[in-house]
Amino acid sequence: MAKPGIPRGTRDFSPIEVAKRQYITGAIKHHFESFGFQPIETPSFENSDTLMGKYGEEGDRLIFKILNSGDYFSSSLELINEFGKIVLDLQNIIDDRNNQGIENFSISGEISEVEKRLFVSKSIKKTYIDLLNEPQLQANFLEAQTVDEILNFGFLDVLLSEVFEFDSKKLTPKISEKALRYDLTVPFARYVVQHQNDITFPFKRYQIQPVWRADNPQKGRFREFYQCDADVVGSTSLWQEVELVQLYDKVFSTLGLVGATIKINNRKVLSGIAEVIGAKDKLIDFTVALDKLDKIGEDGVKREMEAKGITPEAIEKVQPLFNFTGSIAEKLDKLDDLLATSEEGKKGVNELRFICENVAELGLAESLLDLDVTLARGLNYYTGAIFEVAAPAGVAMGSIGGGGRYDDLTGIFGLKNMSGVGISFGLDRIYLVLEELGLFPETVTDGVKVLFINFGDKEALYALKTIKKLREAGIKAELYPDAAKIGKQFQHADKRAIPFAVLTGDEEIINNKFTLKNLQSGNQESVSYEALLAQVTGL
Amino acid sequence: MAKPGIPRGTRDFSPIEVAKRQYITGAIKHHFESFGFQPIETPSFENSDTLMGKYGEEGDRLIFKILNSGDYFSSSLELINEFGKIVLDLQNIIDDRNNQGIENFSISGEISEVEKRLFVSKSIKKTYIDLLNEPQLQANFLEAQTVDEILNFGFLDVLLSEVFEFDSKKLTPKISEKALRYDLTVPFARYVVQHQNDITFPFKRYQIQPVWRADNPQKGRFREFYQCDADVVGSTSLWQEVELVQLYDKVFSTLGLVGATIKINNRKVLSGIAEVIGAKDKLIDFTVALDKLDKIGEDGVKREMEAKGITPEAIEKVQPLFNFTGSIAEKLDKLDDLLATSEEGKKGVNELRFICENVAELGLAESLLDLDVTLARGLNYYTGAIFEVAAPAGVAMGSIGGGGRYDDLTGIFGLKNMSGVGISFGLDRIYLVLEELGLFPETVTDGVKVLFINFGDKEALYALKTIKKLREAGIKAELYPDAAKIGKQFQHADKRAIPFAVLTGDEEIINNKFTLKNLQSGNQESVSYEALLAQVTGL
Repeated sequence: MAKPGIPRGTRDFSPIEVAKRQYITGAIKHHFESFGFQPIETPSFENSDTLMGKYGEEGDRLIFKILNSGDYFSSSLELINEFGKIVLDLQNIIDDRNNQGIENFSISGEISEVEKRLFVSKSIKKTYIDLLNEPQLQANFLEAQTVDEILNFGFLDVLLSEVFEFDSKKLTPKISEKALRYDLTVPFARYVVQHQNDITFPFKRYQIQPVWRADNPQKGRFREFYQCDADVVGSTSLWQEVELVQLYDKVFSTLGLVGATIKINNRKVLSGIAEVIGAKDKLIDFTVALDKLDKIGEDGVKREMEAKGITPEAIEKVQPLFNFTGSIAEKLDKLDDLLATSEEGKKGVNELRFICENVAELGLAESLLDLDVTLARGLNYYTGAIFEVAAPAGVAMGSIGGGGRYDDLTGIFGLKNMSGVGISFGLDRIYLVLEELGLFPETVTDGVKVLFINFGDKEALYALKTIKKLREAGIKAELYPDAAKIGKQFQHADKRAIPFAVLTGDEEIINNKFTLKNLQSGNQESVSYEALLAQVTGL
Repeated sequence: MAKPGIPRGTRDFSPIEVAKRQYITGAIKHHFESFGFQPIETPSFENSDTLMGKYGEEGDRLIFKILNSGDYFSSSLELINEFGKIVLDLQNIIDDRNNQGIENFSISGEISEVEKRLFVSKSIKKTYIDLLNEPQLQANFLEAQTVDEILNFGFLDVLLSEVFEFDSKKLTPKISEKALRYDLTVPFARYVVQHQNDITFPFKRYQIQPVWRADNPQKGRFREFYQCDADVVGSTSLWQEVELVQLYDKVFSTLGLVGATIKINNRKVLSGIAEVIGAKDKLIDFTVALDKLDKIGEDGVKREMEAKGITPEAIEKVQPLFNFTGSIAEKLDKLDDLLATSEEGKKGVNELRFICENVAELGLAESLLDLDVTLARGLNYYTGAIFEVAAPAGVAMGSIGGGGRYDDLTGIFGLKNMSGVGISFGLDRIYLVLEELGLFPETVTDGVKVLFINFGDKEALYALKTIKKLREAGIKAELYPDAAKIGKQFQHADKRAIPFAVLTGDEEIINNKFTLKNLQSGNQESVSYEALLAQVTGL
């Protein structure tokens, strides 16, 4: 029998890993709730039409589809039968042509016959006839000597794909009606619209659940992973952005993560820049190139921009962006000048100023706030603030969080004018950062504190009575289940890093005592229950 | 646009529902850990061959399969092309027969031609020829005048199903290689085998994760639901069973659930009964009938047993089971007599005695233990103890938990002789029971304690500075994000059941004071920060 495994891109989590992950999500959950966010949960799979078309073509491809239950292929089977009849009909046409001679043969005559002789469903017959009427296919078709040759001309391929819709993409909606969620934002939007009458707006919700993507797995990228999202829907107040920056800082502080940079930008500022350079369609090219300033230098960036079709005159207009340093206040002043001619751009600068000034007023404990005009994350749907969090300098890791504002969160499901703003924590990457920096407290993986050695049934019962009391006192305690060799039992304690063992033989039972062994120091002493409790609690 | 919905049998959970569910899982998790169980997590989907064939045919049908990503249908498309060629070949054979006349026609001659003229893959050709050689199909085939008639004889159906394997069941493994987990036990067994070298046995693990079943949804039965499982693997010690009974009691006590009955039985006792009545194959019929004693009376049960083919002599031998009342000790004595001739039966009674006596020694706080010989849950895989938990008398609810021992948990994945024993908590049903009995503490759904009314940006900033301090003191506090009409803001607090509002205007800011309004009593007073904190903490 082959050793069992798990699907590519998925993971088993061992007890230590679960404990560490719960330590992170515990901190996130604590602060989400302290900031007034309420938890919701949505189903792992949604109706396909809830998800499909919401993430672009690439996203659709990466959504895991669930096969319909039962006899999902029966209607397709009907189609395969009809396909057989079409093949026979093609043979019929070729035979006629071969019998009559090409000079006497009339394809339009054949087509009019198809109507009478072919017993397939109406829609199939119609698209088949349409296909026969296509001049290019007709020409190929007439050259063919056999149906096999027609196949070579691609006629049957077109038939299968166009008429019968037998290709993976077209078949999917017929055999799959449900799909695993791809993120938490679209299900949240669906939730808000579906339950709008039960929700008090502004609605602050958080959601910590797994999502699934059929992406190519690589380091730090998995096919099943958790998202930890907090969003507010139903208010355009910029105080939310101020609070979300604080929320990041609070969570990172609790985790002991010092020096994360919360980068902020604004979609309207990006629009303003596009307006100023007179190239709205080149905005992504522009920001992508600008983002490489550190790596390829000003000249390199300008060369790349020109290669993308941005004129030197346009680049000249945004020259200040190439020396975009200083404090946030200084950067905002530069943007004010730069975007003086753009209404939208100025609006974006004012939003940024409000957020950054108030964050400064309230103060951040362990994180830094920075304004980054190259930040263009999710350009397609964000309409205001854009956030991205970089791990502390020196830790090679992509962003450990991100978010932003989208003015029309629920419009896709028919509820207009609901502005939303939210942030997300990247659990897997935060895990790796804490691991790299050695920030997980040792107590995170604390398990059982005391193992009672099993000397036989009488002793085990005595032990379990004590274990029961210890557990009620909040101590994780355990009996070794079998009266195995004592060495084996100690070894078990050692492997599980259990710090104390208790030995209870006849003498202990008679005297109502316990022999407590500290497995780290090796010390061993006879103690009362109270002393036992005190010692194991003290650790 | 249609109002969005979710798939049948799935659920959205509102903040209150999530809080209540977390209250239950929190209690379960606490005691799992206190008893020394360690958390693991496994992927939501497993390789299909890990799951398929482990739950019987019905189970296989209920497993949600995930469609392969990418062009999953391309190899099937090839087959449809080959199917077209086979259809043409059938036409060929019929034409030959019609041309030659039935008297001159030789099917074996045709078949030998097929080998040369048909350009399809080897395996398809072979199964096609096999099909042509089948006498019954051949007879039908020769009667047909056209290929359409062949279709009517079912030849093409057989062709599609047998040769091309175009039916839902046979197609599934070709287009789906992954499936959503159906329970937590099989993934746990897979985990143990896969990670056996990293695990310290006996291994006590717990797992609280959703599972999915394509079952027909009905009241209390969902397509996505959580299982909460604790299992020990790698020890045959009956102390585990003793501990698991205690674990049930502990969790129920914490939840305030008084009077749940933990029913216990033993597979070996059931085998013993089968031995005594001399009908091993009728064991299920026997227990199902016996279980109706309360409803249809002794005569009714006996009639049903006889109808199932159990002889009156056999029934006579187990007469004591029809008056199986009294204390557990009395029931055990009756079983001792009854099963005196069955080695296995006696072993089962001894196991039950050990477990029940030791549970009695250790004591149960709020639950009852009872011996129920009709308990046959999971008869097919349990080998020792069988558990099932009934809600307190008066609550109409199926079992709220269950479990048992299986001597060969990991054998399906090639690791032999690993005995496992475990229990499961039924989250959804426990939820309904607590709801029905009004056992959820009011504090479970406690949300934000203080809403700061928003009078404008200056006031909001002052409010947020205070909110920040309150949060650090452990108080959930929130600013209404917009400077909306004050009535609207109070209404928001009311709808969300927030008990306090704080109003901060110019005067408050100057004096560093807060107007604190108790929204339940309507009382309002001007207080210092310290008094504010004291009041909202006191609630």
